[in-house]
Amino acid sequence: MQLTRYTDYAVRVLIHLALHRDRLVTITEVAEAYAISRNHLVKVVHALGRHGFVATFRGKRGGMRLAQEPEAITLDTVVTRLEERLAPADCRDCPIQGECLFETALEEAMTAFLETLAGYSVADLVEGRGEVLRRTLEGHRAV
Amino acid sequence: MQLTRYTDYAVRVLIHLALHRDRLVTITEVAEAYAISRNHLVKVVHALGRHGFVATFRGKRGGMRLAQEPEAITLDTVVTRLEERLAPADCRDCPIQGECLFETALEEAMTAFLETLAGYSVADLVEGRGEVLRRTLEGHRAV
Repeated sequence: MQLTRYTDYAVRVLIHLALHRDRLVTITEVAEAYAISRNHLVKVVHALGRHGFVATFRGKRGGMRLAQEPEAITLDTVVTRLEERLAPADCRDCPIQGECLFETALEEAMTAFLETLAGYSVADLVEGRGEVLRRTLEGHRAV
Repeated sequence: MQLTRYTDYAVRVLIHLALHRDRLVTITEVAEAYAISRNHLVKVVHALGRHGFVATFRGKRGGMRLAQEPEAITLDTVVTRLEERLAPADCRDCPIQGECLFETALEEAMTAFLETLAGYSVADLVEGRGEVLRRTLEGHRAV
């Protein structure tokens, strides 16, 4: 049971921005830091902007930054807004949908999943590790 | 974030067997009841047998039945055994794996997800609804 790569990459972007709050960051920089596709990131950043997580600025010196404090962005919100389908099973094609309790059980389980993620903000993910994380992402980028 | 179709179908097979405990059930019958691919079900049933959830019998009058009481088969066990990857994100390719807490947060969230499913057995899914479920699956099959 996996999150889409889309949501996974969205969290990576938010982490990168939380680590570099003093300046604008480009998509190319994030793509190089994590060695992931710039094309995928363009769509992810667009979605992050649309949902109010990041602010983007065009132009030669353009880039993006967090649109909220990293303490205010909790992971349940990111997952809920970025994942296209949160229901773990597609019961719509099942003849016993509405009679069997599998869907109910999965909804309860997903609520528990998201409640746990609500306990983590983007700031929590990097807390006390800023220096080592920045260095690792820099070093990776330099290779 | 979705379970594989594999796990989804496994639960449907278990539900069908819980509804017909008085006799052996064939894969063809389950495929027709849910209008799903028999080929997919063959692999699912093989996995259910390997993990001790169902007992299969070959031959002209062969078929399968639950190998455990439906009250004893909890959904967390089914999901844990049938899903190939339970980790919601693949952090293995990420340069900051081990430094960032995203993986930890997801592991905690997945534990909460499975703990909720542990509260549901296959028997719970159909409790008090046996007659209507059997009729619905029969009717669907006849169409």
